[in-house]
Order: sequence, then structure tokens, then C-alpha cells
Amino acid sequence: MKLATLRNGRPDGQLVVVSRDLTRFVSAGRIAPTLQAALDMWEEAAPLLQNLSDELNAGGIAGQDFEAGLALAPLPRAYQWIDAAGYLGHLERVRSLKGSKDAELQSHSPLMYQGGSDSLSAATDAILIPEDGLATDFEAEVAVITGPVPMRATKAEAEAAIRLVTVCNDVSLRRLVVDDLQNGFGFFHAKPATAFAPVVATLDELGDIWRDNRLHARVQVDVNEKLFGQPNAGEGMHFDFADLIVAATQTRQLGCGTIIGSGTVANDHDEVLPIKRDGTGFACIAEARTVEKMKFGKALTPFLNPGDRVRIAARDAEGKAIFGAIEQVVEVSLRDA
Amino acid sequence: MKLATLRNGRPDGQLVVVSRDLTRFVSAGRIAPTLQAALDMWEEAAPLLQNLSDELNAGGIAGQDFEAGLALAPLPRAYQWIDAAGYLGHLERVRSLKGSKDAELQSHSPLMYQGGSDSLSAATDAILIPEDGLATDFEAEVAVITGPVPMRATKAEAEAAIRLVTVCNDVSLRRLVVDDLQNGFGFFHAKPATAFAPVVATLDELGDIWRDNRLHARVQVDVNEKLFGQPNAGEGMHFDFADLIVAATQTRQLGCGTIIGSGTVANDHDEVLPIKRDGTGFACIAEARTVEKMKFGKALTPFLNPGDRVRIAARDAEGKAIFGAIEQVVEVSLRDA
Repeated sequence: MKLATLRNGRPDGQLVVVSRDLTRFVSAGRIAPTLQAALDMWEEAAPLLQNLSDELNAGGIAGQDFEAGLALAPLPRAYQWIDAAGYLGHLERVRSLKGSKDAELQSHSPLMYQGGSDSLSAATDAILIPEDGLATDFEAEVAVITGPVPMRATKAEAEAAIRLVTVCNDVSLRRLVVDDLQNGFGFFHAKPATAFAPVVATLDELGDIWRDNRLHARVQVDVNEKLFGQPNAGEGMHFDFADLIVAATQTRQLGCGTIIGSGTVANDHDEVLPIKRDGTGFACIAEARTVEKMKFGKALTPFLNPGDRVRIAARDAEGKAIFGAIEQVVEVSLRDA
Repeated sequence: MKLATLRNGRPDGQLVVVSRDLTRFVSAGRIAPTLQAALDMWEEAAPLLQNLSDELNAGGIAGQDFEAGLALAPLPRAYQWIDAAGYLGHLERVRSLKGSKDAELQSHSPLMYQGGSDSLSAATDAILIPEDGLATDFEAEVAVITGPVPMRATKAEAEAAIRLVTVCNDVSLRRLVVDDLQNGFGFFHAKPATAFAPVVATLDELGDIWRDNRLHARVQVDVNEKLFGQPNAGEGMHFDFADLIVAATQTRQLGCGTIIGSGTVANDHDEVLPIKRDGTGFACIAEARTVEKMKFGKALTPFLNPGDRVRIAARDAEGKAIFGAIEQVVEVSLRDA
């Protein structure tokens, strides 16, 4: 089934079931008022939501017209957002010019950081930056939402805890990354609100697109209506989602409703921008720039400027957006404009 | 007024008002079911909770017996937990042997990291560690809970957003700190669940103990019933809570119910353990060890072992625990015992 959280004037929005083709929705309010509430009682709620989904897809319920603009982030505020680095290709590219840390070490245990989860952006929210000139970048990622996971989970426990899948845009202010990392306390100011696709799906809904704890689908990124990349999220993911969850529980349990990001999707290739129609390309600007620096001696692709548009969507074999599209425009916060 | 969240079998517990002397409580369920719910509608809820508090303190309501063991963390799961380094004395001590980073830089802008907020520990919960030998340490801190704060808040906005105050124990696995920091992604595995005192208080409840956005009270730490430290949280806090909030909003807004930690409380002195009755001492073991290394050439005070007990409480002039005490015992998680 597919679920979304619609705007209703409250911070956690309203849970709805969305039809497989994303055209219609029906309120799930009689089962659970919010997605977190459904996750908190998943064993009871999931079968009821599935029935509602089956009826909606079969046409037994007419439902109402769904569009991405109605939706908040699936969890508009979450108790935890952990972003990992599952694709080593991304790390290699963005670090290749800086003098890599211990790359060997990182292939044993995935890097991850604690992201801010108090204010997650809707798919159609602006990328709100405090000022221009911070080297604003997107990072297209796959994300899963988990049930509760015990400390030191086994891989089987981790796998069984994955409830929902979607894609997200881990917005990064590259100019602030160096300061954050040099401070030693990790990402903070460089990572403003992450945005999420309007819809989340259960694993069974995805069929064989979901296997080996990976999403085997292209994640297509367009910037200002031009193809920037369409790497396959099922390829190059050295640490699968169960690995990431196991790693996250090394010293702690994970609360129900924890969101875990795959890290920037990256496939191995030696393309540069512009990307051909059947090319692979990049899921963040920093990688494209690093390749340009190595190939041409300087970066050519600019970071995002106010007014620039980014579209991110995981697409099935027919090109349909599985979770709907993230479509964001960069805006400088009015406060300091 | 003073508030607490009591265990009721649900993840967010039940909001209650606690008497000033911490002996009695009354349910606040008719006003708001949980502390987060009260924070979400603070303008309406706060006056009603205050009335209830006034009645309870005046004896108009008998209430029930309060004890710390009934309480969960005030926000058992929160949307955000940001831990800062407000006391530069702590940073200086723990870094003095490692080759300090740019100390000048850090006096301009406070260090802060995003902590895990999905599973916050109750005052009487065990310090659950996955295995022995990880150099388990406590860090006694003051913490505030905020309302919503806009991006790039002014100091006045930051000050006005502080709703509640308490103390916490930012448990740290020192053996994992180096890995976390060297990875460059910041604290993650080294910071398991933070524990909170059973009670939070509004600023007006604290009288002149709360001024200049600081808590002017001793934070007393006892380890295995021996005084470890009692630094005054009002002294040595280079960045006050409004400064910390302003810094946290440099590139983002803060959601309602954000918890911000002061960093380990530290006063300037040249004592070593054991601490005299009227001494100042330390609010974490790492500082005591660093001073010993400088003075004696080696660290003498051990980190926490399974079975060790830590008590942390902010105390008023009469020695009474303002927010109740955090009393934790170190336990190895049964899973790997």
C-alpha cells in the first residue's frame, strides 16, 4: 500500500491511503490519525490500512483527487532521522580531491550522522536558505522508515523492522560542510531541512523493485527541467538498508518511526554533464563538480541559486514516479532577503 | 510550575503537574495528554496548567504521591535534541591533552551536535551499554525545552522561546568518541540515550535562580555515593541558552519541543579528586582524568563500570533537588551479557 500525510493545519498532518497510481486518496483517520500513530500500532493498523488500500485500488471507494501539493512530508516531524553513506561511490567522488580519509575502514562500517528531524520538508516546499552563496546542493537518496529496533540488532531483525520506503532530498550547504566537519562535532549547520517525496510505500507494494534490502529503481534528478542524473539505487549500494540499521544499533535501540537515509545514490561511470538521455549522471552537484575538476581542472556546474528548480523521483520501468516527485525551488528566507 | 511525564504504558506517557516540593502530583490529562501536546498549544495550555499547579501547591488538590521512579523522561521521545558546548572550561580540559583545535574560533560560535532524541531515558533508567570496556562516562548538563524558533532568530526571540528547564545526563562512550570524530560525520555511536531529571520547571518557577538565560544553581554529581562535583551552572557558561538557540538557528528553524543542552557544566579551579565537601569538582569523568594526567602523569579515576551508580541533581540554596535527581546504574545490555 501507499500512504501519505496531508496538510490539515496541524504539525503531524492527517494520514491517508493513496491509490497505487497516485491519482486518488482516502482518509485513514478512522484507523490512525497520523503516520506516527499508525507506526506505533503497526501490527493492528497495517492490515486495516491494507484493506482500505485494496478497496481504493479496486474502485470500491471513489476517494478524492490526490496531488503532491496536498502532502506534508510523510513524517512532518520525526523522532529520528539518520543519514548514512551506503554508496561508497559517492564518498569516493566527493572526497577524491580532499585527500581521502581511511577508505578501507569505511568499507567495513558505514558512516552515518544524526540529522535534524524536527522540521522535515514537504515535497513541494521551497529549499529555504538563510542567504545566498552557501553552495546549496541537493542529495537524492532512498529512505526507509522503521519500527522499533533493539540495540545490537541482527541483520534479520533489521530487515524485519523496515516498514516503509520513499525518496528524499538531503539538502546540503556545501560551504558550511568544512566548518561543521572541522569542528569535529559533525554535520549541523550544513544540513538544513531534508525534503521527502509525498508518498511512502510498503515493501510488498514494490514487488521485485524491492529486493536484497535495496530499491532497484532509477532515481531521476532534473535541475531546471534538464536531466542531471538517473542512477539505479539498486546498484553501488555497498551497505544495504539492513546493514545500515545494524550499524545504527551498535550502541543504541532505534525508536519506532526512525527514518534512515541511504546516502546519495551513486553509480560507477565516467560521464560528465550534460547527461545523455540514456546516461547515468549524478544525484548531487558536488559529485559532478569533482569529476569536472579531475577532468577539466576546474568545476563547471554551479551550485543551486535562488529560483533554481530540482525534481527528484524514483521511477518504475515505465517511468512512473513510484512515490511521487519531490519538486523544490530554492528561495532565500524572507527574514534576511 | 513543575511538570513531569508519568509512565502509562504508552511511548509518550502522561502529563502531570508536580508540586513545588516534588512530593505530590495531579494529572494534567484534561488540559493536554502529553508534554509535547501541551507545548504544541502552549499559549492555551500554560495558564491552565499554572492554575492546576497553584491549586496543588495551595493544598486545594490533594494529589497523589510523586516519586522519580514513576516518571519517564519529560519528553520520552522528542523531535530534536541538540547538545551544545556552552562551558568552554569543559572543552579546554578534555582537549588539553589532544592538541586543541582552534580555541579562538570556538569562543565566537558554540559547538553543537545533533543528538539522538527517539529514546530518551528516564531519571531512574539504567545506563544501558552494549558491552563493557567502552569507557562509559556521564556528562551533567542543564537543558531547556523550546517552543518553535524561526531561522536566524534574534537573541530576544531565542530568549522568549525558552519554555522549560531541567538537567540531563549526556552519557558518553569515550572509547568511541575518537572514531566518531575521525570519521568526520560527528558524534553517533559514542552517544547512547541521554537521561533526564524527572521534572521540568518553567522559568518563573525558578525565581532568581534563572537569570541571564542561565541556571544559577549547583549541579551536584555523586558517583557511588561519593561527591564527584558540584559546579555552579551559572558560572563559566560562556554561551548562555539564548546564544545557543541563536547559533542553532543559523541555517534552520527549530520545531516546538526542541531540547537544547548546555554542554557539560564546568567551573574554573585546580582541584583533583577526591573533592572536598565545599569543593567544586567535575561534572564528567573525562575532565577529572585529564587534570590527573597533567598533574600526576596518568589518569587515576576509572570510567564507569557495570554496577556503578551516578546521581545528578541541580540543587537550590537549601540543597533540595530542583528537578528531582537522575539516579542511574550502569548495566550491560542483556542481549550481549
